[in-house]
Amino acid sequence: MGDNDSLAGFLAVAVEAAKSAGEIIRQGFHQKKNVEHKGQVDLVTETDKACERLIFDHLKKHYPDHKFIGEETSAEYGTAELTDDPTWIVDPLDGTTNFVHGFPFVCVSIGLTIRKVPSVGVVYNPIINELFTGVHGHGAFLNGNPIKASSQNELVKSLLATEVGTTRDTSTVDATTNRINSLLFKVRSLRMSGSCALNLCGIACGRLDIFYELGFGGPWDVAAGVVIVQEAGGLVFDPFGGDADIMSRRMAASNGHLKERFLVALREAEETHQS
Amino acid sequence: MGDNDSLAGFLAVAVEAAKSAGEIIRQGFHQKKNVEHKGQVDLVTETDKACERLIFDHLKKHYPDHKFIGEETSAEYGTAELTDDPTWIVDPLDGTTNFVHGFPFVCVSIGLTIRKVPSVGVVYNPIINELFTGVHGHGAFLNGNPIKASSQNELVKSLLATEVGTTRDTSTVDATTNRINSLLFKVRSLRMSGSCALNLCGIACGRLDIFYELGFGGPWDVAAGVVIVQEAGGLVFDPFGGDADIMSRRMAASNGHLKERFLVALREAEETHQS
Repeated sequence: MGDNDSLAGFLAVAVEAAKSAGEIIRQGFHQKKNVEHKGQVDLVTETDKACERLIFDHLKKHYPDHKFIGEETSAEYGTAELTDDPTWIVDPLDGTTNFVHGFPFVCVSIGLTIRKVPSVGVVYNPIINELFTGVHGHGAFLNGNPIKASSQNELVKSLLATEVGTTRDTSTVDATTNRINSLLFKVRSLRMSGSCALNLCGIACGRLDIFYELGFGGPWDVAAGVVIVQEAGGLVFDPFGGDADIMSRRMAASNGHLKERFLVALREAEETHQS
Repeated sequence: MGDNDSLAGFLAVAVEAAKSAGEIIRQGFHQKKNVEHKGQVDLVTETDKACERLIFDHLKKHYPDHKFIGEETSAEYGTAELTDDPTWIVDPLDGTTNFVHGFPFVCVSIGLTIRKVPSVGVVYNPIINELFTGVHGHGAFLNGNPIKASSQNELVKSLLATEVGTTRDTSTVDATTNRINSLLFKVRSLRMSGSCALNLCGIACGRLDIFYELGFGGPWDVAAGVVIVQEAGGLVFDPFGGDADIMSRRMAASNGHLKERFLVALREAEETHQS
């Protein structure tokens, strides 16, 4: 087993990959983007693809036997199924809409699962130069400094983050805004930044107190963030109750105090909507 | 008339004040905040007050004959009525909730009206070090580089910003989420950053395409931003039609192309809600 074959080694290799990809993102951020449409409100760029190639090539060079799951090129490199094998789960550019518009919440997200447990997480925003890292059992950090989730224990004083997603059929949009309506009576305020991974990091460093998102792209949006949240003393869970499942395309997170009250509020939001 | 008594002089003095206040904000950003409540979801901090004193003292030293309108201490220094006199309109810390939570969208906003026309605007985010400036007839800048509003001319590809405000009665919250519901079918996505002044600057530099906010605190939230938007080729207007009025506590903004389509969408959003 070489020096790279430890959690610390995995982290170092992931940080190298994230920083290299971040450089490409930073260079492209202010340039005119060559935009390709995946759907009316979803976007994929040349930068996105270039970053994924760079990251997977770097990881595969170090870890040829590991598995890979990625947003853009799973067909080429990877798999869609999560196994017990060490598996790198990568979003080369989370916040693609932000990238296209020049809104500075964009990041690289690189997570590693071992026996299906998210074990290493790296989320890097190259525009405002914030590198979030977390290693199972070894803490969470922002630019090398330890971070922790907030100590807020009142829902009414908490800052909530969510996103409106990219689906625009009536029933989804109605559910989205009805849920927000119900929650607004119970929290301090609401933020939407356009990056699922950075929302999780916001929980980890105490900028946000509670977060949920339904129907995001896939495990690449959350695999890194959940390690960082947990190592910062925060909690991740299914927004409808039960354990967090990175393959389920829905996720909730809170600091160490608000989970139960937040789950009640989320359940009440669904009941209000259905009644 | 001294060197300071020109639009360029006004700008220079306002930038000095904004940078000094920004230093106080930056120092306080990561410290524990001594929070005072104005209401359940509104906050005012020691930093807020210290910055307003610093800014008004600096402006009054240079311009003892000018009028002043500010969020916190209008009773002490200023007036609530806008006259033809040169009038400094100041929000020492826009995004107070963000400041308290450590969410990095906070800014100083300093605007000057002359014969009621917003003529100089300075918006400074000291956390991510972005200084937006605009002078009537002389352009808009971010950290000294010229900026312009986006060229997007399709509503469906536009990024919308708004805020949920601080009022939590049923009719206001319902109107807020119904409006969002209607607009979500017509735009690409939605951002909520928690700073009205920075939302206007987002329009000015093309990060955002359209923005509206209803029921914000007062003219201090928009007096600087509207100059910066206009000088960047963007448009400001009343969200229900008609000219922008910085005293009206409601504002809309767009790039140079989307105003009419955005106004139609806003009108349809009200009609949907009322029906």
